[in-house]
Amino acid sequence: MTFAATILTLYPEMFPGPLRLSLAGRALEEQKWSLDTIQIRDFATDKHKNVDDTPAGGGAGMVLKVDVLAAAVDHAKRMQPMAPILAMTPRGKPISQTRIRELSDGPGVTILCGRFEGFDERVFEGREIEEVSVGDIVLSGGEPAALIILDACIRLLPGVMGAASSGTEESFEEGLLEYPQYTRPQEWEGRTIPEVLRSGDHAKIAAWRKQMSEDHTRLRRPDLWDRYNGDRD
Amino acid sequence: MTFAATILTLYPEMFPGPLRLSLAGRALEEQKWSLDTIQIRDFATDKHKNVDDTPAGGGAGMVLKVDVLAAAVDHAKRMQPMAPILAMTPRGKPISQTRIRELSDGPGVTILCGRFEGFDERVFEGREIEEVSVGDIVLSGGEPAALIILDACIRLLPGVMGAASSGTEESFEEGLLEYPQYTRPQEWEGRTIPEVLRSGDHAKIAAWRKQMSEDHTRLRRPDLWDRYNGDRD
Repeated sequence: MTFAATILTLYPEMFPGPLRLSLAGRALEEQKWSLDTIQIRDFATDKHKNVDDTPAGGGAGMVLKVDVLAAAVDHAKRMQPMAPILAMTPRGKPISQTRIRELSDGPGVTILCGRFEGFDERVFEGREIEEVSVGDIVLSGGEPAALIILDACIRLLPGVMGAASSGTEESFEEGLLEYPQYTRPQEWEGRTIPEVLRSGDHAKIAAWRKQMSEDHTRLRRPDLWDRYNGDRD
Repeated sequence: MTFAATILTLYPEMFPGPLRLSLAGRALEEQKWSLDTIQIRDFATDKHKNVDDTPAGGGAGMVLKVDVLAAAVDHAKRMQPMAPILAMTPRGKPISQTRIRELSDGPGVTILCGRFEGFDERVFEGREIEEVSVGDIVLSGGEPAALIILDACIRLLPGVMGAASSGTEESFEEGLLEYPQYTRPQEWEGRTIPEVLRSGDHAKIAAWRKQMSEDHTRLRRPDLWDRYNGDRD
């Protein structure tokens, strides 16, 4: 089954963008995922093809019109009835690796990308749309964020990563940050690879890595650390 | 002064990618920012131009070699001595709008993008590199994340957004999520724009928006809400 990615955007030319290359690019060629872009402007109803208007109540910038957005979303829904619809917005729920894995296990994903000041709020009341954010930062539009969601999903699709890298044992999969990695040369600028990693003792190596993951998580991401400990209680 | 973006990557063709268009694309044409890509592979020293090797201690995937990475980073540092060097990694500090604003106020940014399992840890010990993450998810490489960092910085550069949108009064700038936006039509599928926004009473509108921002932040992002209240104490 091909994972169907559908992007609603004013800039369809931004896709597949970086996903044309490397892992995602090969997977696209091999039809492990498909990409459709929908130009939001095609759903404008006035003769000037306006997609935005000034904010009610005043203020800077422009707001994407609810009637145009809803028509575009309805069209995407007809094309991919089973795919959840995400909207990229700083007000959304922070994306998690758990949600990425759920999405990659499903039929596909439809992503609504905004520009300007944002979306008319009513589209979220009148349509089933999951508001999602990537990081607490403000972008010029949802498109770069959509690329991140797709990249994270695609690498988890069956057969995309080599058999050796199953996508488990990685950052966030167990709620911990990944342990540090090393490779040859054994010594670089006086810094050597930790002795334990050369011991050949697999149990000892696994224990060391687990300990490093826990240490790093506790020090760098107390929020993840608290959640990790809560989950184990 | 032009904001200098330098990307260290195995896939220079991924740039400028989506930043070739729209706001960032226009700003690039107008030389408000510049883009240089550095091919990490050019710093490999063996005849096969290897950039990665198997992880010390065993495990899946490949690790980027510290000697190659350091040589590439040193080259970037010579080109842009004043620009901070970021590395995109799930283990990094979550990027914040505060850090984005600092970066956009500076001379530029150099971003190191990994592929495969990650970087040899020693590069972070031997060089001054800021490890940064965008969202708690795992990507196939740092490139899509680097595009997000650049996009967020570029929109804040002087003259990039219209005078009306100064980049303030937005999500995260004050530690709150943005208030909901509305625009014409006044009624859509029975849903109307909130009455207060049609009142013309600017003080009342500002108070309503502030209240909505606070309500949304408290309900959707208790973590931001706690920080917001802590900051005011």
